[in-house]
Amino acid sequence: MNYKMILYTVGQVLIIEAMLLILPMAVCAVYLEWFSLLCFAVSAAIAASIGGALVLFMKKRDRRIYAKEGLIIVSLCWIAVSLIGALPFVLSGDIPSYTDALFETVSGFTTTGATILRDIESLGRGVLFWRSFTHWIGGMGVLVFVMAILSRSPDRSMNILRAEMPGPIVDKLVPRARDTAKILYIIYIGLTALLIIFLLLGGMPLYDSVIHAFGTAGTGGFSINNDSIAGYNHYIQWVIAVFMLLFGVNFNLYYLILIRKYKTAFKSGELRFYLALFVISAALVLYGIYPLYENFSDALRLAVFQTSSIMTTTGYTTADFTLWNAPIAKAVLILLMFIGSCAGSTAGGFKVSRVIILLKKLGNEFRRSLHPRTASIVKFEDKRVDEATLGGVGNYLAVYTVSFIVIVLLLSFERAFSFEANFTAAASCFNNIGPLYDNIAGGGTFANYSVFSKMVLSLSMLLGRLEIYPLLLTLNPGVWIKK
Amino acid sequence: MNYKMILYTVGQVLIIEAMLLILPMAVCAVYLEWFSLLCFAVSAAIAASIGGALVLFMKKRDRRIYAKEGLIIVSLCWIAVSLIGALPFVLSGDIPSYTDALFETVSGFTTTGATILRDIESLGRGVLFWRSFTHWIGGMGVLVFVMAILSRSPDRSMNILRAEMPGPIVDKLVPRARDTAKILYIIYIGLTALLIIFLLLGGMPLYDSVIHAFGTAGTGGFSINNDSIAGYNHYIQWVIAVFMLLFGVNFNLYYLILIRKYKTAFKSGELRFYLALFVISAALVLYGIYPLYENFSDALRLAVFQTSSIMTTTGYTTADFTLWNAPIAKAVLILLMFIGSCAGSTAGGFKVSRVIILLKKLGNEFRRSLHPRTASIVKFEDKRVDEATLGGVGNYLAVYTVSFIVIVLLLSFERAFSFEANFTAAASCFNNIGPLYDNIAGGGTFANYSVFSKMVLSLSMLLGRLEIYPLLLTLNPGVWIKK
Repeated sequence: MNYKMILYTVGQVLIIEAMLLILPMAVCAVYLEWFSLLCFAVSAAIAASIGGALVLFMKKRDRRIYAKEGLIIVSLCWIAVSLIGALPFVLSGDIPSYTDALFETVSGFTTTGATILRDIESLGRGVLFWRSFTHWIGGMGVLVFVMAILSRSPDRSMNILRAEMPGPIVDKLVPRARDTAKILYIIYIGLTALLIIFLLLGGMPLYDSVIHAFGTAGTGGFSINNDSIAGYNHYIQWVIAVFMLLFGVNFNLYYLILIRKYKTAFKSGELRFYLALFVISAALVLYGIYPLYENFSDALRLAVFQTSSIMTTTGYTTADFTLWNAPIAKAVLILLMFIGSCAGSTAGGFKVSRVIILLKKLGNEFRRSLHPRTASIVKFEDKRVDEATLGGVGNYLAVYTVSFIVIVLLLSFERAFSFEANFTAAASCFNNIGPLYDNIAGGGTFANYSVFSKMVLSLSMLLGRLEIYPLLLTLNPGVWIKK
Repeated sequence: MNYKMILYTVGQVLIIEAMLLILPMAVCAVYLEWFSLLCFAVSAAIAASIGGALVLFMKKRDRRIYAKEGLIIVSLCWIAVSLIGALPFVLSGDIPSYTDALFETVSGFTTTGATILRDIESLGRGVLFWRSFTHWIGGMGVLVFVMAILSRSPDRSMNILRAEMPGPIVDKLVPRARDTAKILYIIYIGLTALLIIFLLLGGMPLYDSVIHAFGTAGTGGFSINNDSIAGYNHYIQWVIAVFMLLFGVNFNLYYLILIRKYKTAFKSGELRFYLALFVISAALVLYGIYPLYENFSDALRLAVFQTSSIMTTTGYTTADFTLWNAPIAKAVLILLMFIGSCAGSTAGGFKVSRVIILLKKLGNEFRRSLHPRTASIVKFEDKRVDEATLGGVGNYLAVYTVSFIVIVLLLSFERAFSFEANFTAAASCFNNIGPLYDNIAGGGTFANYSVFSKMVLSLSMLLGRLEIYPLLLTLNPGVWIKK
C-alpha cells in the first residue's frame, strides 16, 4: 500500500478546498457578513495548513497507485473535505453542533440535500452559499476536479476517476484521464451557466439563481427557502424540472454532442431507457394525482417536477408527495428513489445502466432456459458486457440491498420514529435524494434524529455517493495491516 | 415438448385431488353437514372425471420429460388443483364469488393463509377443514405427494421434485426420487401427528387441533377463529411457536436424524444460521416491545410467537405487530417476511440458504478485492457451490426484486388502499405469509381488494410458492409455440 501517495493526495485536495472556500468569502464580503467571512478564512487556513503539511512531508518517490489505493484515496478525500467543510457552519454559530454540521456538509458534498436545519431562512448569505456550493463540487466529484486542474501521472488518475464516477462502467472520453476530467468540468460549468441564465430570465434574483443552479446541477436539492421551490413561479419550476433531468444524463453523451457525434449520443440505450422511464413514471404519477387537482396544467407541472426531482435524486419539492392520496404515484416515486438516474451523471441511486444490464441478463437467462444452446451475451451500448461487469452488477444489487437493510435496522433502534420514517430517511440518504417529508417525521428535517442516527445517515450518504465499495474497503481493518 | 406426458400428469394429480376430497366429506358426515358433503362429492366427481379423461386419452408412449417439462407440469398441476379445489367453497355458498374462492384456495395450497373471509367462524366445519387441509397438502407439495404414492420412471421424478421443492439446491435423500418423496411425507405425517398430540394435551379440541396442525405443518396460517391463535392458552401458543419453527427447518435434516446421522444434521450451516437468525430477531423484537407490556413473560411469549410465525411465513398471530410502537420490532419482522426459512421446508420467502450463499459470495468478492490472487470458492454445507448455482442465486435475487416491484405497482392502481397496505399485501402474499394487519387495510382481510388485485395476489402467491421460474416459463407464449 502506497500510504504516502494516499496522504499526499488528501493534502492536495485539502489545499484545493482552501481555495474553494475563497468563493463564499467573496459572497460574505458582498453581503457585509464580516464575522462569517472571518470564519471562512479560519476554516480555509486550517484546510491549507493540514493540506500543506501533508503535501510537504509526504514525499512522492513512488507515484504508482493501484485500484485499491484509488478506492482508499477517494474515501479519505471525501471524509477529509467533509470534516473541514463543516467548520464554517460551527464557527459561525449557524450550526452549533459539530455532528449536525458534519451531517449537513456530507449531505452537501454527496449531493443528498438532507438537512438538520429547522429554519433555513435564518442563516447568513455566505454560509448558505457554501452549503449549496458543496453540492456543485460534490456533483462532478472532488477528485475529478483536482485531476482537471492539476497535472499528474496518467496511471494514477484512471483508478481515481473510476472510483469517484458512479456506474458499472467508466470510460475515458479521451486517451488521457486528465483531459477527460477537464472536458467533464467544462460541460458541467457550461450547463450550470445556462441554467443560471434561464433562471434569471424567469425573474429569479442572481443569488437565488446561483444557489438553485448549484442544487440542480449537483442533483443535490439544498434550497434557501423553507418551502424549497414551491414559492417560485411556474416558469422557474418548469426550468428546474427540465434541468434536473438534464443533469441526470450521462455526461459522456454531452461530450458526444460537443464533438458532433449526435447519432451515437441519441442511440444510447441508457438515454432511451432513462427518458422512457421518466415519461412512463410521470404519466403514472399524473394519472394518480389528476383527480386531486382542479386543472390539468397544475397536475402536470407537479407530476413532472416531483418525478424529475426524485428520479434524478435531487430532492427539490413543489409538493409533498407522501400527502397525496394516490397510491400509484407514491409507489412509482418510491421505486424511482432506488433506481436513480444514469451512470456518469451527478445523480445517485442504483443507476439506470445497472437496471438495464440486470434486466438484459435476466432476459438472457430466461431465453436460455427455453433454448439451452443459446449463447449468453449481454450487450449494452452496442458493446458486449464482459463477465466481470455482469457479475459486478449482480453483486452490487446484493451489496446495495444488504447495506440498505443494515441502515434501516440501525435507525430502528431509535424509538421516536416510525418504521416508515426510518425507511424513508434511509432511502432518502442512501440514494442521495434528501427530503424527509413533513408528515413522516415532523418538519421535514433530520434535526430530531439522535447523534448516533445522524452518524449512520452521514455514513450512508457517503456509501451511496461512492457506491459502497470504496468506503467498505477503507473501513476494513484488514486493509491497513501490513503483511 | 412432451404435451401428452404433461397433461397425463395433470390428470393423475386431479384424480388424487378427488381422493383427497373424501376426507372433508367424512368431516361433513361427522358434523351432519349434508349439503356440504354433497358439494364436496360433486367437486370430487368433477376432478375425477377431468382427471380420468386426461389419463385415459393422453397415452404415454414417450415417458421422458426434461427440466422444462418438469417446470410446466408443476405450474399446471398447481393451477389445476386450485381451480378444482375452489369449487366446494362456491357450491356450498360459503364463498359465492369464484374469484374469491380461487384466491382462498390458492392461498391454502401455497400455504399463504391470506383470506378474503370477513367472518371465518360463520363457515361450516367441513369447508373449514378443506380450507386448512389444502395447507397441509401444499406444504410438502402436491406432486411430491403424487410421487410418493405412485410408481413412475425415475428420470421424470427428479425434475419435478426439483421444481416443487423450494431452495437453490435440491438433493435426493436416497437414490430413487420416489423413495425420497415417501420419506419426506413420512416425516411430515409424523411431525404433524406429534403436534396434534401436543395440542390435545393442552386442552384444545380434536377438530381445532387437526386444523391448527395443518396450518402449522404447512406453515400456512389459516385458523378457524377470527382472532387466530390469540384466544388459546399460553401453553398452546408456545407449542405452536416451537412447531412453526420446526417446520421451517430443511426436512433433509430430519431424515439425517432418522438415520442417526446426528452430527451431520447439527453441523448444518443452514440450520445454525436459521436458529441464530431466529434468536437474534426474537431478542430484538423483545427489546422493542418489552416497554409496551407489563411483564416479561408476556413480552417474551408474544415476541417469540410473532418472530417464529413471520420467519416461517406461517402467519398465525397472537398480536398485531403493526400496532406496536416499536420500530426495531417492526423493522426486524418486515425483514424476516422477505428472508423466510430454510430451503426444503414448507416455508416461503427468499430462503435462508440463499441469504447464506449470497453473503458468502459477497465476502469472497470483498476478500478478492484485497488479495486479487485468492481463489473464489464458496462453500455451503461442506460442499463447493458450483458457478451455476452461485449465478442462479444472484439471478434469483434480481428476479425476486423485480417480481415484488411489479406486484406492488399492479396493486397500486387501486385507489382504495394506501401504499403501505399494498406493500404489506404484496409482501404477505408473495412470501406466502398471509395476514394483512387490521390497521393497514381494515379488518385484516383481502375482501375489499378488487377482482383484478385478487387475481394479481393469487398469481403472486403461486409465484412465491413455486419460486417464480416455473410460472414465468408456463406463462410465456414462446414455450408453447412449436418450431
